[in-house]
Amino acid sequence: MIVILKQNPDQEQLNGLLRWLEAQNIEVHPTVGTHQTILGLIGDTSEIDVDLISALDIVDNVKRVQEPYKNANRKFHPDDTVIRVGDLEIGGGTMTVIAGPCSVESEEQIIGIAKAVKKSGGAILRGGAFKPRTSPYAFQGMQIEGIRLLLKAKEATGLPICTEIMDASQLPLFEDVDILQVGARNMQNFSLLKALGKTRKPVLLKRGMACSYQDLLMSAEYILAGGNTDVILCERGIRTFETYTRNTLDLACIPSLKTLSHLPVIIDPSHATGKSALVPSMACAAIAAGADGLIIEVHNDPPHAKCDGPQSITPEAFDKLYRRLDAIHRAAGEEI
Amino acid sequence: MIVILKQNPDQEQLNGLLRWLEAQNIEVHPTVGTHQTILGLIGDTSEIDVDLISALDIVDNVKRVQEPYKNANRKFHPDDTVIRVGDLEIGGGTMTVIAGPCSVESEEQIIGIAKAVKKSGGAILRGGAFKPRTSPYAFQGMQIEGIRLLLKAKEATGLPICTEIMDASQLPLFEDVDILQVGARNMQNFSLLKALGKTRKPVLLKRGMACSYQDLLMSAEYILAGGNTDVILCERGIRTFETYTRNTLDLACIPSLKTLSHLPVIIDPSHATGKSALVPSMACAAIAAGADGLIIEVHNDPPHAKCDGPQSITPEAFDKLYRRLDAIHRAAGEEI
Amino acid sequence: MIVILKQNPDQEQLNGLLRWLEAQNIEVHPTVGTHQTILGLIGDTSEIDVDLISALDIVDNVKRVQEPYKNANRKFHPDDTVIRVGDLEIGGGTMTVIAGPCSVESEEQIIGIAKAVKKSGGAILRGGAFKPRTSPYAFQGMQIEGIRLLLKAKEATGLPICTEIMDASQLPLFEDVDILQVGARNMQNFSLLKALGKTRKPVLLKRGMACSYQDLLMSAEYILAGGNTDVILCERGIRTFETYTRNTLDLACIPSLKTLSHLPVIIDPSHATGKSALVPSMACAAIAAGADGLIIEVHNDPPHAKCDGPQSITPEAFDKLYRRLDAIHRAAGEEI
Amino acid sequence: MIVILKQNPDQEQLNGLLRWLEAQNIEVHPTVGTHQTILGLIGDTSEIDVDLISALDIVDNVKRVQEPYKNANRKFHPDDTVIRVGDLEIGGGTMTVIAGPCSVESEEQIIGIAKAVKKSGGAILRGGAFKPRTSPYAFQGMQIEGIRLLLKAKEATGLPICTEIMDASQLPLFEDVDILQVGARNMQNFSLLKALGKTRKPVLLKRGMACSYQDLLMSAEYILAGGNTDVILCERGIRTFETYTRNTLDLACIPSLKTLSHLPVIIDPSHATGKSALVPSMACAAIAAGADGLIIEVHNDPPHAKCDGPQSITPEAFDKLYRRLDAIHRAAGEEI
Repeated sequence: MIVILKQNPDQEQLNGLLRWLEAQNIEVHPTVGTHQTILGLIGDTSEIDVDLISALDIVDNVKRVQEPYKNANRKFHPDDTVIRVGDLEIGGGTMTVIAGPCSVESEEQIIGIAKAVKKSGGAILRGGAFKPRTSPYAFQGMQIEGIRLLLKAKEATGLPICTEIMDASQLPLFEDVDILQVGARNMQNFSLLKALGKTRKPVLLKRGMACSYQDLLMSAEYILAGGNTDVILCERGIRTFETYTRNTLDLACIPSLKTLSHLPVIIDPSHATGKSALVPSMACAAIAAGADGLIIEVHNDPPHAKCDGPQSITPEAFDKLYRRLDAIHRAAGEEI
Repeated sequence: MIVILKQNPDQEQLNGLLRWLEAQNIEVHPTVGTHQTILGLIGDTSEIDVDLISALDIVDNVKRVQEPYKNANRKFHPDDTVIRVGDLEIGGGTMTVIAGPCSVESEEQIIGIAKAVKKSGGAILRGGAFKPRTSPYAFQGMQIEGIRLLLKAKEATGLPICTEIMDASQLPLFEDVDILQVGARNMQNFSLLKALGKTRKPVLLKRGMACSYQDLLMSAEYILAGGNTDVILCERGIRTFETYTRNTLDLACIPSLKTLSHLPVIIDPSHATGKSALVPSMACAAIAAGADGLIIEVHNDPPHAKCDGPQSITPEAFDKLYRRLDAIHRAAGEEI
Repeated sequence: MIVILKQNPDQEQLNGLLRWLEAQNIEVHPTVGTHQTILGLIGDTSEIDVDLISALDIVDNVKRVQEPYKNANRKFHPDDTVIRVGDLEIGGGTMTVIAGPCSVESEEQIIGIAKAVKKSGGAILRGGAFKPRTSPYAFQGMQIEGIRLLLKAKEATGLPICTEIMDASQLPLFEDVDILQVGARNMQNFSLLKALGKTRKPVLLKRGMACSYQDLLMSAEYILAGGNTDVILCERGIRTFETYTRNTLDLACIPSLKTLSHLPVIIDPSHATGKSALVPSMACAAIAAGADGLIIEVHNDPPHAKCDGPQSITPEAFDKLYRRLDAIHRAAGEEI
Repeated sequence: MIVILKQNPDQEQLNGLLRWLEAQNIEVHPTVGTHQTILGLIGDTSEIDVDLISALDIVDNVKRVQEPYKNANRKFHPDDTVIRVGDLEIGGGTMTVIAGPCSVESEEQIIGIAKAVKKSGGAILRGGAFKPRTSPYAFQGMQIEGIRLLLKAKEATGLPICTEIMDASQLPLFEDVDILQVGARNMQNFSLLKALGKTRKPVLLKRGMACSYQDLLMSAEYILAGGNTDVILCERGIRTFETYTRNTLDLACIPSLKTLSHLPVIIDPSHATGKSALVPSMACAAIAAGADGLIIEVHNDPPHAKCDGPQSITPEAFDKLYRRLDAIHRAAGEEI
């Protein structure tokens, strides 16, 4: 951490700061110039609050050099995290495709889609039971019944299931769910993150629409700090001025997050674009860029889907897309 | 609602859509041009899901004309909502200043600040007990004890108190709290919003960092739809590319939200700017623009505040600011 | 175009509007509801100013249905534009890689890089002669001498050259340049765009950092409306809150712009990310998503480049990348 | 400037860097920790290119401590710049209101508005002659004739005039114009900025829609570095995800720019909001926040304005607004 002092700092306040830093086991190396003095802080500064130091009258500016996350930091965990869900491995060079409808709507629907997803190569079934909707008047999901139907589809196909949890109080209902999804709007619901840190289930953590890579990794840190090591990072678009797409898919997050962290990164092209016609090319791009997988909305009858129909692709389109993804995944991994 | 059809739409699908709309009590007025056909939908479209219609093969585009919120909509509630907290009235032309520390830290601290706030003219005491922090290693607030101390400060000064609730499960602890604050990161925590809709306490709803006016009003709608009529909208900065300030304070929300809605609007210049030196001018600007009030961080010793010190002003600065605000409030309201 | 009227519009103003629209050869189809009246305008509305109508007292809102650009619009030009530069074809399914240094620095440097680029498969040489720099104190390019050296490199290798023009007054200097590049900061320099519309040289038009797809297509329209049909659209990152990358690369622009327009789309992963380590994965992603090509910064000695060193890759890295791009281009185009 | 080295840097490269810095008259103070080494650079680093150093293999990260602008920097110019236009003083505590139509449309129009503006208290007449329009099909201004009419209005009223210059080649036409306006889309048209640096006329420099405070000050630096000391900074809204307003007016720029720089700051509430109904409250807010002035669109007949009608206010509304602004300016400046 670097502390830039104002010109002619009050000596007493400065001594106070130096003593306090010493007490935190931080070494201080000052650089004194004619116009300014810079303090270089060496040691474990991840638990030091930048705000505390910034607030001092004598301080002009504080800049972090070290990342404020540890458990999610590749510097301390150089090897890729590989998450096991049954026989499946997520991360470490594999391609995992999660697919299914936005919402579970009926037994017939979810089992039908699950079978199609599996046949094409999909590894995990997704489907919303509890749905976060911006409007209180929109369909809120089948809730407990939705989870029951997902479990039926799991039984019928052997596919593990991934579904969204909206609140820590729902945890008991998710006992047989394989992957707990945290939605973008809940990425900084710290009560929920703490509760998930205490479980031992993989968590698919979606990036919030206004959250930086560091914010995302700090939210992952909440879960990891609780003792749960299985966090999958998921980009689903950030909010920008462009309105043609629902959000702006930030694929540079793939190499960036993989540099900063050891956690797997998967991409959601469906929510990011909001338009089914854009999903295949963005899915291909994500795999070419090195994503560990995808989460894609597939619906047997998009125009009659209870939500997010415009971004769902049909099982036929998914089948074709999967073959394309496979070809690109091989081309991107070939020895050169 | 306007539905723009693709060229040469499939007649069968079109008939299906027309029948379905009719079943929802929506009148359809088609406009047939050489290159495109537009359907004008007349009736209560607030509960019609745009996505459902957009997903149809025959549809090019759907545009909402009517806002998707009703209870929060000024069109249906032309008079300003005035929220009563004891003798206090929030909204309708008054200026309500909520002030206090980011976090409650001790009995002495909170009572001391409360007295100073009251003396200067502040109407409500704020103070964080449960603190949403981006880092799991940062101070998380005094929690239950923090609420106990806020209540002591209320007893000592008579000031109503406003503090943040992070999770529906905490509601029983907030029984004696006067105003429940929902933080920006929880603005779309729909489980929490639904729970607050069932209470009868005023809710201070902060705008999420990537949320539009409409998103904010839809979140208010969740609370209002539950039967709780007392929602205060709060702008606290949105996230943009500018990094000099913590966030970008969007003061145009004041006249905009007041046009769209009847709910009171208050401004948080402390979180928006993240810099105490910018707080007074932004507070003055908000009042000049017609805000119903402010929520300002005041701390007796900002450099030693347990969080958000850099954005807190001292009680002395608050006292001076309050007098300035009062002068501007009068100048902005004068007969001309 | 859709005009939504306020409740109970003044009849005289309404008649005035209807007469004016008629004079513009626009048919008006009204939809009268209990709460509002909607006018559907049918005809060529691309030259009608939305602002003019929005300003009327009787108008609540105006929504465009038809795009305001014609020459750049795929609806009127269904076939892909293919731009010929010598024997080279840009667009229509080919992959064109433009590469070279940010700035031309010496004859030896530019010829050396040009040879390496050509050997690896690059089709066009890029190199800055006139450099737009945010600081007046930064290196501003070799200017005329830079163009002379680019022409030498063209002579030595046969590669066509692409370099940035900053001002219409520079046009005479660009007589032998093959592709004129317009930088992101000049995307809405309308004087320059008009001048380029009068030339018959291909223009590489970079998207401004705060410009939507529609803005980009409107700037292309300026050039096309002048009679120059050869515009290449180029995405180089938009500005968002994320600061880890220099900008946010918006790859969804590829399928989006190709839906909206017939013009070729190429991607600049170097300026978008600002980090050489992120360039290869973003280049692969762009090709997998269907881009017509790339523009990549290659420098023989990035640490001593006169500008943008951190985002330049070495000729060796470019060589390896080109082979990967080729493999992905084939995988993305394979029959499935 | 702070240079953070990677772990175990190559000693030879490091020595090369140290020698190079020495040659630039930069003192280097290293801070060696167990996990990283930090170099504190002391001296005039404003002309050192961050990119050059970032590109070195041994460097992890470079952080600027000192601002990269000098002439625009309050640290080196502590007193407010006051710009004189005839008897008028802009900056230093005064309130200067520039007003007039978006476009000059006729002699009668511009003289009529000029008289009304002057009567209400406006100090400078604005009016567009050369109009930057996103559509090539929109009205592009009366051009030279527009300037001639502005000069007639100046003659008739004595008001100085302010109008936009789009290109350096237009300079001779602006000989009698008092203030040269640079539009947001041209803020980084460096050819134009350099040309304006050579004039001795005040320049009103509008902030680009995706430009930070630092970018704006760097563009001002271009003009100042050329020897022209009279730059007025103007905020007119930045581009964000919010679409209700045309742009997001960032009023925190007022105290921020005044901290960073000595140049006057004026606010354009008309372009920022795009809605005349929002203009008065945003104008009041700007003055309350300490802006040195405003630039406001006033049109005698907004519904028939040739451009930007929806954001123009009538002379009657301007007259009322001016009185309100005056009251707020006094309240904001009162002794307390």
